Amino acid sequence: MAEFEYDLFVIGAGSGGVRAARTAAAAGANVAIAEDLYLGGTCVNVGCVPKKLYSYAAHFHDAFDDAAGFGWHLPEPPRFEWATLRDNKSGEIKRLNEIYRRMLENADVTLFDARASLKDPHTVLLKTAEGNTQEVSAEKILLATGGWPWVPDFPGHQHTLDSNQVFDLECFPERFMVLGGGYISVEFASIFNGLGSETHLIYRGNLFLRGFDDEVRDFTRTEMTRKGVNLHFNTNIETIEPVGNAYSVTLTDGRKMEVDAILSATGRKANVAGLGLEALGISLDKVGKIPVNERFETQVPSILALGDLIAGPELTPVALAEAMQLVAHHFSPDEPAPLDYAAIPTAVFCHPNIGTVGLSEEEAREKYAAIRVYRTDFKAMKHTLSASQERTLMKLVVDDATDIVVGAHMVGDDAGEVIQGIAIAVRAGLTKKDFDSTLGIHPTGAEEFVTLRTPTRK
Amino acid sequence: MAEFEYDLFVIGAGSGGVRAARTAAAAGANVAIAEDLYLGGTCVNVGCVPKKLYSYAAHFHDAFDDAAGFGWHLPEPPRFEWATLRDNKSGEIKRLNEIYRRMLENADVTLFDARASLKDPHTVLLKTAEGNTQEVSAEKILLATGGWPWVPDFPGHQHTLDSNQVFDLECFPERFMVLGGGYISVEFASIFNGLGSETHLIYRGNLFLRGFDDEVRDFTRTEMTRKGVNLHFNTNIETIEPVGNAYSVTLTDGRKMEVDAILSATGRKANVAGLGLEALGISLDKVGKIPVNERFETQVPSILALGDLIAGPELTPVALAEAMQLVAHHFSPDEPAPLDYAAIPTAVFCHPNIGTVGLSEEEAREKYAAIRVYRTDFKAMKHTLSASQERTLMKLVVDDATDIVVGAHMVGDDAGEVIQGIAIAVRAGLTKKDFDSTLGIHPTGAEEFVTLRTPTRK
Repeated sequence: MAEFEYDLFVIGAGSGGVRAARTAAAAGANVAIAEDLYLGGTCVNVGCVPKKLYSYAAHFHDAFDDAAGFGWHLPEPPRFEWATLRDNKSGEIKRLNEIYRRMLENADVTLFDARASLKDPHTVLLKTAEGNTQEVSAEKILLATGGWPWVPDFPGHQHTLDSNQVFDLECFPERFMVLGGGYISVEFASIFNGLGSETHLIYRGNLFLRGFDDEVRDFTRTEMTRKGVNLHFNTNIETIEPVGNAYSVTLTDGRKMEVDAILSATGRKANVAGLGLEALGISLDKVGKIPVNERFETQVPSILALGDLIAGPELTPVALAEAMQLVAHHFSPDEPAPLDYAAIPTAVFCHPNIGTVGLSEEEAREKYAAIRVYRTDFKAMKHTLSASQERTLMKLVVDDATDIVVGAHMVGDDAGEVIQGIAIAVRAGLTKKDFDSTLGIHPTGAEEFVTLRTPTRK
Repeated sequence: MAEFEYDLFVIGAGSGGVRAARTAAAAGANVAIAEDLYLGGTCVNVGCVPKKLYSYAAHFHDAFDDAAGFGWHLPEPPRFEWATLRDNKSGEIKRLNEIYRRMLENADVTLFDARASLKDPHTVLLKTAEGNTQEVSAEKILLATGGWPWVPDFPGHQHTLDSNQVFDLECFPERFMVLGGGYISVEFASIFNGLGSETHLIYRGNLFLRGFDDEVRDFTRTEMTRKGVNLHFNTNIETIEPVGNAYSVTLTDGRKMEVDAILSATGRKANVAGLGLEALGISLDKVGKIPVNERFETQVPSILALGDLIAGPELTPVALAEAMQLVAHHFSPDEPAPLDYAAIPTAVFCHPNIGTVGLSEEEAREKYAAIRVYRTDFKAMKHTLSASQERTLMKLVVDDATDIVVGAHMVGDDAGEVIQGIAIAVRAGLTKKDFDSTLGIHPTGAEEFVTLRTPTRK
């Protein structure tokens, strides 16, 4: 191995890259990592972490409203100060960045604050912000540069923010618009609505959250509308024109709106620009991802890739699992079992939250000869005293032949927290009978998942 | 069957009684039920439901404090009005009482608003509040009168409230004391502390929540103290003397305190007074419960009993499960499998909440040759921006030989909601490997339960 300076050189210090670097180093490899932007990647800096913090902030709006029914009188309405939230968020992220730096140090991973590209199958070219360059050799090079927001091209698109920028707006947008129908779009719509913006969501399709259970999508539409988000489906942005400090937006259905900020949540692409893939003969698949084999090897076997750069769900826990799997393949003696992408649970932090694991009802109908669907929607106990009309949806999808629970879905408070444990059961292939034989924890919302006695439909 | 007026006569319309009545009626039996106090029993009227509503009310205190770090400025501090909470709670309970009444009507169960006692193995004596009496015959009689608070005898004990009375206090107690070390005690301590009372918990033992995992108990002590509850262990109330509208309490360690209300949460006993058990030769066990066989038959086979009247966990879901089991035994053709009291999950709504299923570390050490304990405690993401120092504890107890997760414990926000799904996995005997192969839902607290890689101790 003395042929190369490092056993593994990781490009990109996000969730997947850092986990791979640390795990490989722990397995005895000599590891370096390069990052030119932010330690911790999308998740820590412009994804999961700030999104969840802002979602918490937005939830307080409901708490203030709900409190009255419980005897709490607020003499004056609470005032929201955007700069406090934004700057406290930035302070917390700085703290996390430092934790990542220390974790890498403690793991004996060499960190280069530089932009890295591929020179040849075993050489990385590093360039610092000051313009200094350096070449480093490694037996294996791991590409872990993640994803980057993608914004469509239409007149005025340059006036939109992407999801990297929206967290750090200088001023709070009294009127907020988000373009897109994916989970990032519904999350930001709920966040700005909760923080007090007049909020508009624009999506060209007829209903957001494609790929999720249809009943979940429909229920979420009802609840988000009830909370005051203005949902505009079957339309799109045609043009954006600046008007003073605001923007005039013309939709394809002819309507015009004036808003203070517009977020493009129109998708993400693999962040491959400037890596030098083409020169090495690494081509992309038709959605712009890097093809890899089961060992995460690209067309150049010494060059590996994982996370949002490759096909598969773009989720932090997936990148972490891939990182550990990759290290097991390349730096430990035992060959691991292949990674199983089935029944990956996930949450969407729109308000109310969505939690889901396994198959939607529609997917299950495709896959199985007969299914049973158990569903309930109800007003959570908290809202019997609050003035809120919010309802909670819970749903189990069961393969009729085997009684196995193949999908579990929830829209409601803390849906992600509730679904995590359910996901262990679904992942392990437990049956509806296993669910039924578990006693409820009373009074909780989650107990409904073990007390659904009668199928709603088959 | 024409020999008797009813196939089943249920005494007591609480969780277990109502479920048994409805289920038996659905199975074709001719059923009546008697209740002289409140429809829905302890759970609906003076237990789970009002307790959880008050716990929600108390949580708002934290929400107001936490909000500042998220940018919310409260120009004036919120004021708590006890009467609003109390009366809204009563309105909600009245609504639930009516739902119970309608459920019984719709199930064709005859409801007697009367106090019932046993005259002979097939005859119930009914007495209304106006003093009218009536005799009713039934092939089987189910005792379902639940439990009743028990208060020890000491000088001044008549000045204490029991948990039936505390919900409806005329005035809010600025200084609140609770006596006892069980779950009801810690719940009310957290409730009144959260609502703004100076709160004292008095318990003769050296730590509350006996029977729960020791680390959970200890962690809860730390967190409740941090939130401002004054915990006084290894002491007891010696005397209580009225002083104006308040009370002077002398403790056995010599200290004196003045408080405005004192709750005795010193245990509950089976509610058997006046049922007429003795005359029929039904004796009680040494803790005052009614012995029954697997078919819930007492020493008099036509007289059945369930719920808090018999041995076993005093929990609504247990009474519900017993009711359905009992009806399966007596009113359906198939003999059901025996009820399994293992791995019954439960929550304690102290602040922070406790959620637990399966064995404590101590129980597991007794039962298995070797165990592995995985634990973590951390500041939940929400509290990175709030000023709160609250921490969350999560813990898995694993049988080393089989890798089966035999216990799961949590102290933290919504612990009951998180543990419900975990309980399905524990109940089904899933292994630590099953937990590990489930991906986390990021960012949640619950994901820690599937990412605990290294045992803390063996």
